[in-house]
Amino acid sequence: MAISDHIAANAEKLAAQYGCTARTTEEIIADPQIDAVLIATSTDTHSELIEAATAAGKAVLCEKPVDLSLERARSCKTNIAVYGLPVMIGFNRRFDPNFSALKTALDAGEIGKAELLSITSFDPAPPPVAYIKVSGGLFRDMMIHDFDMANFIMGEAPMSIMAAGSSSVDPEIGAAGDVDTADVTMTYADGRICVIKNSRRAVYGYDQRVELLGSEGLLQAQNTLENTVVKSTTAGVTGAKPTYFFLERYMPAHAAEWAAIVDAINNGTTLPVSLDDGVAVLAIAEAATLSAKTGRPVLLADV
Amino acid sequence: MAISDHIAANAEKLAAQYGCTARTTEEIIADPQIDAVLIATSTDTHSELIEAATAAGKAVLCEKPVDLSLERARSCKTNIAVYGLPVMIGFNRRFDPNFSALKTALDAGEIGKAELLSITSFDPAPPPVAYIKVSGGLFRDMMIHDFDMANFIMGEAPMSIMAAGSSSVDPEIGAAGDVDTADVTMTYADGRICVIKNSRRAVYGYDQRVELLGSEGLLQAQNTLENTVVKSTTAGVTGAKPTYFFLERYMPAHAAEWAAIVDAINNGTTLPVSLDDGVAVLAIAEAATLSAKTGRPVLLADV
Amino acid sequence: MAISDHIAANAEKLAAQYGCTARTTEEIIADPQIDAVLIATSTDTHSELIEAATAAGKAVLCEKPVDLSLERARSCKTNIAVYGLPVMIGFNRRFDPNFSALKTALDAGEIGKAELLSITSFDPAPPPVAYIKVSGGLFRDMMIHDFDMANFIMGEAPMSIMAAGSSSVDPEIGAAGDVDTADVTMTYADGRICVIKNSRRAVYGYDQRVELLGSEGLLQAQNTLENTVVKSTTAGVTGAKPTYFFLERYMPAHAAEWAAIVDAINNGTTLPVSLDDGVAVLAIAEAATLSAKTGRPVLLADV
Amino acid sequence: MAISDHIAANAEKLAAQYGCTARTTEEIIADPQIDAVLIATSTDTHSELIEAATAAGKAVLCEKPVDLSLERARSCKTNIAVYGLPVMIGFNRRFDPNFSALKTALDAGEIGKAELLSITSFDPAPPPVAYIKVSGGLFRDMMIHDFDMANFIMGEAPMSIMAAGSSSVDPEIGAAGDVDTADVTMTYADGRICVIKNSRRAVYGYDQRVELLGSEGLLQAQNTLENTVVKSTTAGVTGAKPTYFFLERYMPAHAAEWAAIVDAINNGTTLPVSLDDGVAVLAIAEAATLSAKTGRPVLLADV
Repeated sequence: MAISDHIAANAEKLAAQYGCTARTTEEIIADPQIDAVLIATSTDTHSELIEAATAAGKAVLCEKPVDLSLERARSCKTNIAVYGLPVMIGFNRRFDPNFSALKTALDAGEIGKAELLSITSFDPAPPPVAYIKVSGGLFRDMMIHDFDMANFIMGEAPMSIMAAGSSSVDPEIGAAGDVDTADVTMTYADGRICVIKNSRRAVYGYDQRVELLGSEGLLQAQNTLENTVVKSTTAGVTGAKPTYFFLERYMPAHAAEWAAIVDAINNGTTLPVSLDDGVAVLAIAEAATLSAKTGRPVLLADV
Repeated sequence: MAISDHIAANAEKLAAQYGCTARTTEEIIADPQIDAVLIATSTDTHSELIEAATAAGKAVLCEKPVDLSLERARSCKTNIAVYGLPVMIGFNRRFDPNFSALKTALDAGEIGKAELLSITSFDPAPPPVAYIKVSGGLFRDMMIHDFDMANFIMGEAPMSIMAAGSSSVDPEIGAAGDVDTADVTMTYADGRICVIKNSRRAVYGYDQRVELLGSEGLLQAQNTLENTVVKSTTAGVTGAKPTYFFLERYMPAHAAEWAAIVDAINNGTTLPVSLDDGVAVLAIAEAATLSAKTGRPVLLADV
Repeated sequence: MAISDHIAANAEKLAAQYGCTARTTEEIIADPQIDAVLIATSTDTHSELIEAATAAGKAVLCEKPVDLSLERARSCKTNIAVYGLPVMIGFNRRFDPNFSALKTALDAGEIGKAELLSITSFDPAPPPVAYIKVSGGLFRDMMIHDFDMANFIMGEAPMSIMAAGSSSVDPEIGAAGDVDTADVTMTYADGRICVIKNSRRAVYGYDQRVELLGSEGLLQAQNTLENTVVKSTTAGVTGAKPTYFFLERYMPAHAAEWAAIVDAINNGTTLPVSLDDGVAVLAIAEAATLSAKTGRPVLLADV
Repeated sequence: MAISDHIAANAEKLAAQYGCTARTTEEIIADPQIDAVLIATSTDTHSELIEAATAAGKAVLCEKPVDLSLERARSCKTNIAVYGLPVMIGFNRRFDPNFSALKTALDAGEIGKAELLSITSFDPAPPPVAYIKVSGGLFRDMMIHDFDMANFIMGEAPMSIMAAGSSSVDPEIGAAGDVDTADVTMTYADGRICVIKNSRRAVYGYDQRVELLGSEGLLQAQNTLENTVVKSTTAGVTGAKPTYFFLERYMPAHAAEWAAIVDAINNGTTLPVSLDDGVAVLAIAEAATLSAKTGRPVLLADV
């Protein structure tokens, strides 16, 4: 096992912690003993590293998004097709035990046919505006997780995307050309509807909920909480806040994600999220970004 | 006190139950002893009856909507302006103790500045298609309540309305030119966003929730339940369903609504909902209907 | 309909409000036109009034307890047996929709065989010590409701009663010879166990919960809340408090209780709570009072 | 690191899994390189192993109970006092994040002065009767955890213990001289009261709740759930069951417990649970066992 980091000291520290070696990216990719790589670098290096790793015969788990450019993500997909290797994009939320239990219940027919999906996804606090400027915008950077969740639950991509957004949280974000509060409505060929709400700021913590109305019922995956203590006083009945942010909320999801790609590499099981999924959500993010700018619905087929 | 019903037997029965007399509508309006009338007739008679009652010096509580025609509702408003009498439209949900507590908390600054409002409003079962055909459509007939809730909470009308709808519940409803599942996104001049979701069918009961994200927190008004019993078995932990439909859910709201107009008549207090409010939501419903048909956002100023 | 009150002005006021007449107790009992009386006087007059009313051929709904003296309550029962008239004691909680739903679920076998019952019953604030002194003590005055709830759910009286109590809320209550915080454990002939917890003070409101473990599950009847609004802020997730006290919590129960005795009088249906039930709980209260004083379990058969 | 197991194959398997060696207990205790031992053997060997390990200069984490014999536990305490080494008894529940958050809130004065504590502790299913027979009985084997929880929250031992029990779950357990359903009421010198409820069977899972009424409010630590999904259908609103048993529920507690003793050994921090705590709860268990047999309250000072 080996670790590379463009800040050598960080690589050394992690290597010591996990009992492995710190090496350059080039060395890692060139080493035939290494079967798989995890790419958690800045987004602009993802496509290139995916291509280099697969060309060297390695399986890949790459953090989202594949690329900020839909065109480049598509060319990456084309370029690596020949290798037929497992390439998984890190849509960790599919592995959240709550969301996956909801999906399992849906697939088991527990609420009949899906009709109306709602995804609420609020961060506890906005990132620095400097980050916003290189992020590709809320739809590519943040809501992309929710687009993947919609694809995961609905089982296919939407037909049409309508986005509304504003910079209610911080006008600086608006000045940087982005939004921090947004709502996207997606319609599907068979009439299903999906609504996604995003905010860069929910002061009470990471708000991550999914709700699905079906012909025979409703499924809701609610927030996980810091603890189960409830206090009743003259001021009301108060429980704990949601687990603060993604590290706390999605720790079990990350463990399950990791187990899935290890299983795929070792036992040839199907990858639960592929590079194709990563490219598909980029197209939706592109459509949403365009819709928010023009104030018009955008057909997915047009991007 | 007197009751009129175009089916005389019904009027007689109610009159007996409440110890009053059954009379014709004309007699009631002509009676100078009667100070106020409640109009709960079919929608196409609302405007005319409001005009006749106010011309006869009576205060009015009229069930929604004012009219299916926005133009007619506007002319009704013009026609009765001269009388200066209390005319309240029956938007009962403003009087629901849960929604009004949410509004009170917002106005008290408990979550800072409003940013993103979500209204979920599902009926337990669709009405007959025959009713759908004369209803004016989902946006004028059903979502009109939610438009009023949005106006109530946001304190002003939206700028732009985008609607998506389908007939997922019953294709007959689609064949009748209406939708039964719909999502409307409204944006406000200052960047606030409101999302309304409607379905004609939630098999578990009347689902009536409001959720508002603000700069300093989140407010949620949740469903009322049939009872508080929770059963834990090998099958899971099961609680009661939401109160079944509007009669059960909004009984306290109707009582509070009634008290409000009586108070306005007797003591000259301000009407919490006026005919103007009734006309305002019709304009939003008109915009939503147009948006759903064209697939384009509609500016409220354009209807 | 007629009303009597030893403060004449109060009787006059109520009579005006409900459109009836204010009369003396003697006049009411002597009036052959009156079929039934509601006795809501001070406890020391209950037995005598029940006897007088039934002797005059009237049905009775009398507030609990029948008497502070178990002996007197038993003689009342003996004295009126000859008349065979409906005499109901006001154990309103049996009519609470939540507790009655729990009982219905139990009787329907939804959690198998009952094994362990827990009743939590806290008042929001203690009454004046002057009231405590004439109340008969916590077990006869307050926990008597919970003894009746236990009898209602378990379907029979316990075999043995063990009580523990203290005056944690107010040492003045202890000085008056009573307790304000208490726990009673009752065991049944077949091994079932019931635990009742009382406190004269729960600053967050009226806490009225029942929980029953059975061989196939658990039933819980939880508190009703002032409203369904939940607020999430940096301080936590806060919901409404329980409805404040018995007037708010048990309003629907009182209406159902009233309907039950009217039905029994008019249609001869079985009384859901009888004088026998009122005498039975007095015996349990007597046993609990004795147990708390001696620190020893008391057999119900011994009181 | 080394592992001993009286079934050699098990020790070998664990040793391989964790990269250490399988050795005899004697070898481990004799090895001066080993600083601390975890004793998770059958109860009858605990005292002897604690004594041997501390005599050899090792710190100890020993699973509860110290011994089934209170006398032997006390002699163990005396025998090891001279070594002054950290000896922690495995009362894992003190480390549960929910119970420790409740304790922290109490200590911070959030509900004023403690008055009435309730502990609910139900296992999902009873152990084999063969186990029951050597377990020392429910009070020493199962409720001992709850006695420790009471000591943890109340900050001192109770004065008096009254127990009631039955074999409602399985008459075989009764035939073996034990109970499977029990309630214990403990009173404290200052008037506080604690109620503990145990059942060997809650078919819906591991039910582990603590509730504390104080002069200024109520604290409740509720169950953790398998997931946060809620399903609403015509059958009701159903959520997930509690996490199934102690392995699932107390995994984070075990990790925190382990971290605490490691910290005590490495940094000399105070042990959060000591051998003294383990002896103290045995005395309470002894009193409860006696009380259940005699039907009388037992003073802790008398055992």
